[in-house]
Amino acid sequence: MRLLVVGSVALDSVKTPFGEVKDVLGGSATYFSCSANHYTQVNLVAVVGDDFPRKYFELIEEAGIDTKGLQIKKGGKTFRWSGYYEYDLNQAHSLRTELNVFETFSPHIPEEYKNAEYVFLANIDPDLQMEVLNQVRKPKLVVGDTMNFWIENKKESLLAILKKLDIILLNDSEARQLCEEYSLLKAAKKILSWGPRIVIIKKGEHGALLWSSTGEHFSAPVYPLEEINDPTGAGDSFAGGFVGFLADSGDLSDENIRRAMIYGSIMASFDVEDFSLNRLQNIKKEDITERFQELKRITHFEELKETISKEE
Amino acid sequence: MRLLVVGSVALDSVKTPFGEVKDVLGGSATYFSCSANHYTQVNLVAVVGDDFPRKYFELIEEAGIDTKGLQIKKGGKTFRWSGYYEYDLNQAHSLRTELNVFETFSPHIPEEYKNAEYVFLANIDPDLQMEVLNQVRKPKLVVGDTMNFWIENKKESLLAILKKLDIILLNDSEARQLCEEYSLLKAAKKILSWGPRIVIIKKGEHGALLWSSTGEHFSAPVYPLEEINDPTGAGDSFAGGFVGFLADSGDLSDENIRRAMIYGSIMASFDVEDFSLNRLQNIKKEDITERFQELKRITHFEELKETISKEE
Repeated sequence: MRLLVVGSVALDSVKTPFGEVKDVLGGSATYFSCSANHYTQVNLVAVVGDDFPRKYFELIEEAGIDTKGLQIKKGGKTFRWSGYYEYDLNQAHSLRTELNVFETFSPHIPEEYKNAEYVFLANIDPDLQMEVLNQVRKPKLVVGDTMNFWIENKKESLLAILKKLDIILLNDSEARQLCEEYSLLKAAKKILSWGPRIVIIKKGEHGALLWSSTGEHFSAPVYPLEEINDPTGAGDSFAGGFVGFLADSGDLSDENIRRAMIYGSIMASFDVEDFSLNRLQNIKKEDITERFQELKRITHFEELKETISKEE
Repeated sequence: MRLLVVGSVALDSVKTPFGEVKDVLGGSATYFSCSANHYTQVNLVAVVGDDFPRKYFELIEEAGIDTKGLQIKKGGKTFRWSGYYEYDLNQAHSLRTELNVFETFSPHIPEEYKNAEYVFLANIDPDLQMEVLNQVRKPKLVVGDTMNFWIENKKESLLAILKKLDIILLNDSEARQLCEEYSLLKAAKKILSWGPRIVIIKKGEHGALLWSSTGEHFSAPVYPLEEINDPTGAGDSFAGGFVGFLADSGDLSDENIRRAMIYGSIMASFDVEDFSLNRLQNIKKEDITERFQELKRITHFEELKETISKEE
């Protein structure tokens, strides 16, 4: 019972230049779970309506994710998101967001989840994120995500939850918006001053950057792909690899957090290869190991003893 | 007489959110020279008008750059560029480009430069780049740069010069435009099929990627900066560090080319800290070494023996 995630389980309709899907399994907690699940046991807390397809329920359960905390609201409709991407796959364009059962969602943490050592607060209302934290006992690590909507509409609640997080994940445009700073380094410093000891700024196809309050900085690369079909869920898949690996290893050293960033980058690379959870469902350990080796190969370099021979 | 560069020496007027300068020293060959010059002796071929300020001539000479090939055209006006950047510093907006003496420029390579072992063809008309190559004898390495204007207006000449280059440098939007491919990996493969054995795609604040025809791939990070004042010349400064280091070390192994990418990234990071050549002029060896160590620190990671303990 190590890793708890609270967030959305959704039905997504997505169009990209490479295809289109309708009412497929999505949601921040789903992507996170199906990613973290390759590293450790995941306990999922979310809500769906009774229109939620049986096959998706089975997909989540067959992945080995614990669904004791997945509420099914009688007569309710599942959260739905529809959107599209143009060639700039870094930018999602929302067409419709139907909160449905999320309008009245109040996260109830099952008794046996309350001792969770690792908690991921996926992108939901920061007030709900706080409700979750008020129910868990003494987690070793709390990681949270957010989005522009909460920055614009619930900034105070967001700042309150930031105080409680060990690690905040957000994307580059969100970091700039939240801090009103163009420089990501300046934005990161500002965010660290608000509470978290680590900030991770996700840059989509350009990788992710980490800064910590102790001065640690790390730049995680992306795995080079020839085919990218759908970026939906990449950030949550990153979070799943990152937190899942940390929960499995139990080691929160700087060195291990770097490794966790690499596992995050790897899981995001699998996610974007196909629509919905199609690729994340079908990963083997050796696929992950292979991408880890490749990411090491494409980023490492060594200095020469005598670097520049020219005299000044 | 190892490194020859042919390109523009210009007077730039630049406005960024952080300041504004008028008629300051700029140009692709200038940025390249003042960067490569920290690694090796640079021989510069370009043209200016007799309006070219004495102080800029002195600046170039005092940096130790050989200016035997810098033609001064009597009665001619120096090439001028003016443009601005908004908060997205990755995107230059051109206001005016006055070719002036470049309209009739025909590069004349001084006899003693013709044995250059390393040649950098900065961003000029691909027909002029070809004229340069026709004059040099047997270079060990030819590296070239280009821009969207030549892709749009001189594609055939560009494809002809590509056949002659060992290494082509271009930025991500140019690679996508030239290849009509969104995936940078696909674009890189296409470019390699046209001749060069290495393609380097510069991504501004997101670093640079290298692919080679032997399957080598490398992802170079950016040095994290709090203050970026003017991105003008970053690509040419990158090229200067990259080619300058290679020319100095004389080692074209994959491993050394990775190192050269890091020196490229370092020189770009110095360039963008200030307007014109202000920062590039004032770098010491230890500044470069320090940034090299820091870039290593922020990108390296090691795997654990047992990476994932969870059973499949």
